[in-house]
Amino acid sequence: MEANKPVTTTTEQPQPIRCKAAVCRKPGEPLIIEEIVVAPPMPREARIRIICTSLCHSDITYWKMQELPAIFPRILGHEAIGVVESVGEDVTEITKGDIVIPIFIADCEECIDCKSTKSNLCSNFPFKISPWMLRYANTTRFTDLNGEIIHHFMFASSFSEYTVVDIANLLKIDPTIPPNRACLLSCGVSTGVGAAWKTANVEAGSTVAIFGLGCIGLAVAEGARLCGATRIIGVDIRPEKFDIGKKFGVTDFINSGECGNKSVSQIIIEMTGGGADYCFECVGMASLVHEAYASCRKGWGKTIVLGVDKPESMLSLNCNGVLVQGKTLMGSLYGGLKPKSDVPILLKRYMDKELKLDEFVTHEVEFKDINKAFDLLVKGECLRCVIWMDK
Amino acid sequence: MEANKPVTTTTEQPQPIRCKAAVCRKPGEPLIIEEIVVAPPMPREARIRIICTSLCHSDITYWKMQELPAIFPRILGHEAIGVVESVGEDVTEITKGDIVIPIFIADCEECIDCKSTKSNLCSNFPFKISPWMLRYANTTRFTDLNGEIIHHFMFASSFSEYTVVDIANLLKIDPTIPPNRACLLSCGVSTGVGAAWKTANVEAGSTVAIFGLGCIGLAVAEGARLCGATRIIGVDIRPEKFDIGKKFGVTDFINSGECGNKSVSQIIIEMTGGGADYCFECVGMASLVHEAYASCRKGWGKTIVLGVDKPESMLSLNCNGVLVQGKTLMGSLYGGLKPKSDVPILLKRYMDKELKLDEFVTHEVEFKDINKAFDLLVKGECLRCVIWMDK
Repeated sequence: MEANKPVTTTTEQPQPIRCKAAVCRKPGEPLIIEEIVVAPPMPREARIRIICTSLCHSDITYWKMQELPAIFPRILGHEAIGVVESVGEDVTEITKGDIVIPIFIADCEECIDCKSTKSNLCSNFPFKISPWMLRYANTTRFTDLNGEIIHHFMFASSFSEYTVVDIANLLKIDPTIPPNRACLLSCGVSTGVGAAWKTANVEAGSTVAIFGLGCIGLAVAEGARLCGATRIIGVDIRPEKFDIGKKFGVTDFINSGECGNKSVSQIIIEMTGGGADYCFECVGMASLVHEAYASCRKGWGKTIVLGVDKPESMLSLNCNGVLVQGKTLMGSLYGGLKPKSDVPILLKRYMDKELKLDEFVTHEVEFKDINKAFDLLVKGECLRCVIWMDK
Repeated sequence: MEANKPVTTTTEQPQPIRCKAAVCRKPGEPLIIEEIVVAPPMPREARIRIICTSLCHSDITYWKMQELPAIFPRILGHEAIGVVESVGEDVTEITKGDIVIPIFIADCEECIDCKSTKSNLCSNFPFKISPWMLRYANTTRFTDLNGEIIHHFMFASSFSEYTVVDIANLLKIDPTIPPNRACLLSCGVSTGVGAAWKTANVEAGSTVAIFGLGCIGLAVAEGARLCGATRIIGVDIRPEKFDIGKKFGVTDFINSGECGNKSVSQIIIEMTGGGADYCFECVGMASLVHEAYASCRKGWGKTIVLGVDKPESMLSLNCNGVLVQGKTLMGSLYGGLKPKSDVPILLKRYMDKELKLDEFVTHEVEFKDINKAFDLLVKGECLRCVIWMDK
């Protein structure tokens, strides 16, 4: 019955877009803002116009790193928010004009992990530091004006006016949420808040110790505060972190550089009469994990490892006398949050003035000044610097 | 008004008892059955006539051990059942004639831990391998006929016709339970069953891997079976353990001596399509903990450490790529069971023919033959040997 009908294209096919991106061409050198070409999205992908993006320590790590999995040229950036410019085939979840944030771990919503409430580690698309698109081996959507490929980062590459992101890595959000707040949920703040809320499941009335009051450690404090923790002990070598920490619920502070002949764990055990209920390692030092583990209470103490040490680092725990004390050691990625079900809850709590996000944004710059954001974070002078794309 | 009333003793004061005990006088040498004197119980203690006792690996460990915390002469034995012969002052919970089992971890029922459902590690009386009574420093209730003191073991010292036990270490039980079954709940079987039930909280339908099918590993299988695990993989170097394991619900077996060029974790990951939901290390080897951890599933896998390695052993885990996989490492003492509230539930489940205990008792001997029990357990020829005291 449909014979003789002319084949028509009902929707306009997306074409390559030429736009500006901040390209990392050599490790540790300033990003270069240059013209690039962004290919159209493949099936199950969307092309996004980035509204703003924020800088996270992982960007710094892969900017400085000399060897694989570092790779160049690459477009870094993974905390962001954007508007959908076009979608590839087989995309029904989102459409042109939707406001979305990329999230570096996939949520395919179909595999055993994504369907389970217990896991946030997609089996169809396991997280890795890949220079390619999520579901298409060895392909990128970026080329420079010489036709050379440019690599992706954390399935986001948000330091570009346009980028292509897999549907499994995209969360459609309420468009009324301020973009320079929503972008924080892509990685760091979610990781910290999630670690307290989902991984540790901090109980109301409990005592928490946080090793390292950077953005993630402060986000742990914020998550613990929201969970009703009554005592939140911050541990950091920089005393000015206590005042910052107070904004996020930190009630006590230990300057780890001024412990005298006591260990931090001894001080925490004395302060708490036996140890904290939950200890979070947010620095990424194997030796601190041991100290955090020693600081948590026998019987029910949990130690949650968020910091990521060098891949070859080994964590050592005393087998006897420690493990039998009923303690638990846990790790998680992205704070154990399920991107598509848990993050909307956090965004709503922000809009309901429960979750603090404003306080994390200490600096904002224009896209042309993106290297200033790197300077600020490297020097430890900011928590989050939001980079606004040219509109 | 009470003046002039004569002071009377309304109850008969307990006197020292002379009885037989199997004394360990030198490390690794046969126990010597000799006459000893058992002092009356002090306040909050009870003197018990042992009905029967079973031999656990911890007895072997402290029998062989040459250095502290080994100490000699000592009366070993801590899995037992007895009848209360007399009680000290301030004891209202139990009375003469009650049937009781000693449990090596205290349950004072008063401290924050004992009142909490989350901990089984009493704060008033923390567990230690002490040669003394629980609440009276440097005192024993045993002397030999020369008046020399004999040391206690695990607050039980059940290789004696009479012993003195603290009320915090005594559980009054239903007297209709067969004594040669109830005594198993003092330590090993409880530790394994409790690890699956309380520490891991094994979910119905899940997959479990057990490293080491000795008494504790088999008790883990039994606990996992009761929790509804549908696949229970036993790992042992002795193939005959599979047939024994089947009695306790083991469904699959890996001979760890015949894995070819694969690791046990690789085999488990292949068998289960990603790893077991729960892995239990029941041997006490730091390297096996690493293997168990590698065998458990990303996202929600739990590794529970039951084996106790040498005190100086360190457990090494890869910091990166492992901890971030959402895995949990837990340890517990006595399987996380609370002596006075959880053990009665297990005993009832035995009487209701749900929990298997009969199958653990492979041998029974008379007290005079106690050294045979040591031979059998050292050679790995028995699970539990029950030693009946002379009646």
